Amino acid sequence: MTDTYIVHGDIIHAPALDAIEHIPDGYVAVRGGRVAGIYGELPAEYAHMPLHDYRGRLVTQALCDMHLHAPQYPMLGMGIDLPLLEWLNTYTFATEARFDDVEYARRVYDALAAKLVSVGTTRVCMFSSVHTDSTLALMQALEDAGISGYVGKVNMDRNCPLSIREDTERSIAETERFIDEALKRFKRVRPIITPRFTPACSDDLMTRLGELARASALPIQSHMSENADECAWVLELCPDCSAYWETYHKRGLFGEKTIVAHCVFSDEAERAAIARCGAWVAHCPDSNVNLCSGVAPLRKMLDERLNVVLGSDIAGGAQLSMLQVAAMAVKSAKLRSIATGGAEGCISATEALYLATSAGQVFFGEQPGFAQGNEFHAIVIDDRALQAPPSMSPSDRIGRALYTTESADIEAVYACRKL
Amino acid sequence: MTDTYIVHGDIIHAPALDAIEHIPDGYVAVRGGRVAGIYGELPAEYAHMPLHDYRGRLVTQALCDMHLHAPQYPMLGMGIDLPLLEWLNTYTFATEARFDDVEYARRVYDALAAKLVSVGTTRVCMFSSVHTDSTLALMQALEDAGISGYVGKVNMDRNCPLSIREDTERSIAETERFIDEALKRFKRVRPIITPRFTPACSDDLMTRLGELARASALPIQSHMSENADECAWVLELCPDCSAYWETYHKRGLFGEKTIVAHCVFSDEAERAAIARCGAWVAHCPDSNVNLCSGVAPLRKMLDERLNVVLGSDIAGGAQLSMLQVAAMAVKSAKLRSIATGGAEGCISATEALYLATSAGQVFFGEQPGFAQGNEFHAIVIDDRALQAPPSMSPSDRIGRALYTTESADIEAVYACRKL
Repeated sequence: MTDTYIVHGDIIHAPALDAIEHIPDGYVAVRGGRVAGIYGELPAEYAHMPLHDYRGRLVTQALCDMHLHAPQYPMLGMGIDLPLLEWLNTYTFATEARFDDVEYARRVYDALAAKLVSVGTTRVCMFSSVHTDSTLALMQALEDAGISGYVGKVNMDRNCPLSIREDTERSIAETERFIDEALKRFKRVRPIITPRFTPACSDDLMTRLGELARASALPIQSHMSENADECAWVLELCPDCSAYWETYHKRGLFGEKTIVAHCVFSDEAERAAIARCGAWVAHCPDSNVNLCSGVAPLRKMLDERLNVVLGSDIAGGAQLSMLQVAAMAVKSAKLRSIATGGAEGCISATEALYLATSAGQVFFGEQPGFAQGNEFHAIVIDDRALQAPPSMSPSDRIGRALYTTESADIEAVYACRKL
Repeated sequence: MTDTYIVHGDIIHAPALDAIEHIPDGYVAVRGGRVAGIYGELPAEYAHMPLHDYRGRLVTQALCDMHLHAPQYPMLGMGIDLPLLEWLNTYTFATEARFDDVEYARRVYDALAAKLVSVGTTRVCMFSSVHTDSTLALMQALEDAGISGYVGKVNMDRNCPLSIREDTERSIAETERFIDEALKRFKRVRPIITPRFTPACSDDLMTRLGELARASALPIQSHMSENADECAWVLELCPDCSAYWETYHKRGLFGEKTIVAHCVFSDEAERAAIARCGAWVAHCPDSNVNLCSGVAPLRKMLDERLNVVLGSDIAGGAQLSMLQVAAMAVKSAKLRSIATGGAEGCISATEALYLATSAGQVFFGEQPGFAQGNEFHAIVIDDRALQAPPSMSPSDRIGRALYTTESADIEAVYACRKL
């Protein structure tokens, strides 16, 4: 019966990009881990169900972190004064190389999984390292912690240190082993095809990963158009392509189940291709600023109806809290708006909430918000300590939640059951 | 004897803008609340003193928040989708008007003082509201909590709602009463002359505040060149001035003891005037982004040897933690660097630490860093939970502290004694 209960509190959720719904002093009925209904007053038929009473606290959706690098957790907040390619070579690859040690991986990943829950993240789309067994250890850690989503063993066979470079054959063979094991062992954490990014993957590797994606019907994640130097390099490496997105599309890696991080430098044509193919953009505002990449045209992407989700992108990003990342999305959109003299608009706090929650849910095949039938993924924020002014609108309360919540303020986290 | 003790841990402090000093597994000897010395090994003469043992944790300087609005604490994180002047009229002035109720003020200010200590802020330069008695209640709350610095009763006699507008005579009379009472009642929290900003203060009020500042030898705080619309308005309001800074300078309010917040739009000439007069800039990067003001030219200011300190500027800023504000200073400098095609450089994490700590200390008449003779203001950050890579430089450890510390990670706060 741990997955059948009533949650009571001030409920705010995001059923659409431009709308939040507020049920003050309301009730969510959860049956079998799924939302059965939301009510202003509790219906008599639910009177016997266990009541989780958070009266006065904010009950909202749990967060989806749609792009992050698990093996970079040990370097959180470090070395982010360098531009992307230099940072990769100085810090990142060396840190990731340590994950050939499965015991070390298990220690780091258990800590990461616990930390994710503490900041209210219950669904992820995550990069591991090239190491198959450590990747399986990561999936185990997430599943044990109650987190669901996708995890990918990284593929790379060029332009990276030998310590983490794979032979193309071995990269494919290990990916097949990874997929087999992962599908056998885990229920709520699933495998995803993960070419690191075009510079680190030969055409042959990309083509064979594309075949694997089609044969296995698995989704795909990678990086795209993050940094000006990287974009130029990609076009040098792939003379048969005239845009970054084509380097994935031509190898069968760009469609409705593809999620690409960043797209800071995706121009109008590339954004149109993303929309046409139904691919997903994981916007990572904290990382893009830290690595001096720039600010992605988020407002334009939303107006052009692209599928956009948010990612912490640790350890390019240094904020694991997706509430903080959502606040950073609002801030960096403002900076882009200022830089364009107001030609590009801002995004609101409630839009940021949607992107950090509902948008990810949709990627995972659910409805936005606390829709009936959805798995119940929720957080309870105790925001009573702040002295509120006499009137506070629901959107102000969400703004305050994004801008001021620390993990200690998150009183409870749900992913079907209370974690 | 609560102000004579030894603190043991990994000591990192910022004796200069471009340098940190690291004493791993070191000792700070504190006598009578002041730094007596820093040691790699504890001298025999100190063996009998009480030892506060934080082995393995980071011991660094406590934070100085050099610009914030205490009565805006109840609206933290709210309404920051609006530009400055609209935000002032919709949210801010209404919130501040409630502080004519001293009991309400006391409740909010006790909570604020406790929160400041919890985020490691021990020195402040703070705006209150126009209300004298509530301002004295604020000073009492800070002094009781162990926080020191300056607090100003705000002056404004035009261009604001009647509920908080003062008659010029009364504004001066109340300021005199405020100064008398404050100097009598408080030891570590001192009064500061606080014209809100030029648009809200008549020439007559400004002139008389300038006379009061000279007669009392008190420092002065205000706002300057925050927002493009505001800058244009100021020049309309003061036809005798050709730049914003002159509106303070001509009334005797701009000198070595003046601290002005923002300076986002201070051009080369205004910055030269700031340097020439020895005035201080309180850079408030979080607020400047939230209110769509822009990004101040921090790198230029530092290269031009201006006196720069940092402020949270709550509630335009939504981050009370000066570690987070310091991280935001690094991020927004990056964005300005990107926007100028690299013409303006970035600032490092260690420079940000200096600005958030030592720079404020210097404003308060102390030496930078944990200099001998300084009051001992320190925080202890427990950063052991994060799995560190094999080698971590002191600057990486500082970067990590700025980017990832939550208040729960701050294990102890010192301001002469342990708070």
